[in-house]
Amino acid sequence: MISLEEKKLQGHKHKLLAFEKRRAQISGTKNVNVNYNVFAFCQIPAFKHGDNIVNESAAACLYLEFKSQGNKLIPDTAAEQAVMYQRMMEGLTLTEKLNSTIYYEWFIPEQERHESAVRRNREALTAELKLWEGYLQNFPPFGLCIQVAAGSYLAGAFSLADVIVFPNIACALRFGPSVERYPKLAKYYSLLKDRPSIKNTWPPHWLPSPQGYDTLKNI
Amino acid sequence: MISLEEKKLQGHKHKLLAFEKRRAQISGTKNVNVNYNVFAFCQIPAFKHGDNIVNESAAACLYLEFKSQGNKLIPDTAAEQAVMYQRMMEGLTLTEKLNSTIYYEWFIPEQERHESAVRRNREALTAELKLWEGYLQNFPPFGLCIQVAAGSYLAGAFSLADVIVFPNIACALRFGPSVERYPKLAKYYSLLKDRPSIKNTWPPHWLPSPQGYDTLKNI
Repeated sequence: MISLEEKKLQGHKHKLLAFEKRRAQISGTKNVNVNYNVFAFCQIPAFKHGDNIVNESAAACLYLEFKSQGNKLIPDTAAEQAVMYQRMMEGLTLTEKLNSTIYYEWFIPEQERHESAVRRNREALTAELKLWEGYLQNFPPFGLCIQVAAGSYLAGAFSLADVIVFPNIACALRFGPSVERYPKLAKYYSLLKDRPSIKNTWPPHWLPSPQGYDTLKNI
Repeated sequence: MISLEEKKLQGHKHKLLAFEKRRAQISGTKNVNVNYNVFAFCQIPAFKHGDNIVNESAAACLYLEFKSQGNKLIPDTAAEQAVMYQRMMEGLTLTEKLNSTIYYEWFIPEQERHESAVRRNREALTAELKLWEGYLQNFPPFGLCIQVAAGSYLAGAFSLADVIVFPNIACALRFGPSVERYPKLAKYYSLLKDRPSIKNTWPPHWLPSPQGYDTLKNI
């Protein structure tokens, strides 16, 4: 949805589905091809443009770049693209580590849960968040000659890397980690949260409880 | 490595690292920046081109597309790109489901292992393999007007989707699932294994034991 806004494709139809009830809701959703294999797996998000269905976030974002209107979200030079693609794909690891910790009890049946696994997941997530804190600390990376203030975007100008990674950072911060330990992530969050494409697509169910959780309190 | 061959970038230096000993080996590897954060996490593959380091497979493949030489691996039309990006990104789910099953004992400490988890992982992998079998069965997908024989490539011509997904299919078949249950995957494998870019980059340690495992025997 951030990419759609950046591409000036406001006004698209969309429907918010509750994670817990996704199968029932997807079946009742018009304008998506419920026979499409992946819907049998109940994966979200789902994105349909004309006859084209793309339902992996990163795939949908890459696809939308064929639109020449709005902001270009893939940079021009090979050096910038290297950092951008790297961060974008690493963002999927961040998602996975967040999910393993925040939704542990959702994914793992009760009789298979272990304190040691919870601890290991939390350690992996802490290391992952420190990695991203470092990326924002040491900008520009790899000696690239791009003049950007430390702590602004992930790969030069605002790019697909931010589109993919920002929602993860926002999700992480919602679950209450120590902001003192991650000052650059907090700065990044506070810089981007008011960007129109992000503000306009803010999850409505996040508004009543901006920081109601403490799952990540000691992380 | 398949992308490098497709782009006619043969002759690049490369080093094969053993998965089990990766930290020690990466530290001793010349020509990669061992100070780079991700190397602290010991992620492979690692790819360095000039000053650009990209070490996520999909990111490195997307990056290499800036090279105009060799085969173009991203199709031209939006409709073809939709399928290509979709399959490419779904390939990462296939990797994850393969890893959860094949390397279960490698990832999960002994005291945390459960028969129920093994069973669930195997069921998820079976569903995933059937999904890919279906993709190859029903080509062309979504009513696209591309005339391609069923069971050839994943998204029209040979593309990044095949670059990312083929190694997963090859890995799956090495672990002995019932080929009768996945005739299209077997056909896809047998069509692509002799493609020069794939043949030239075949893992050398796969040669002595082309099918020495039966981890996926009943899948």
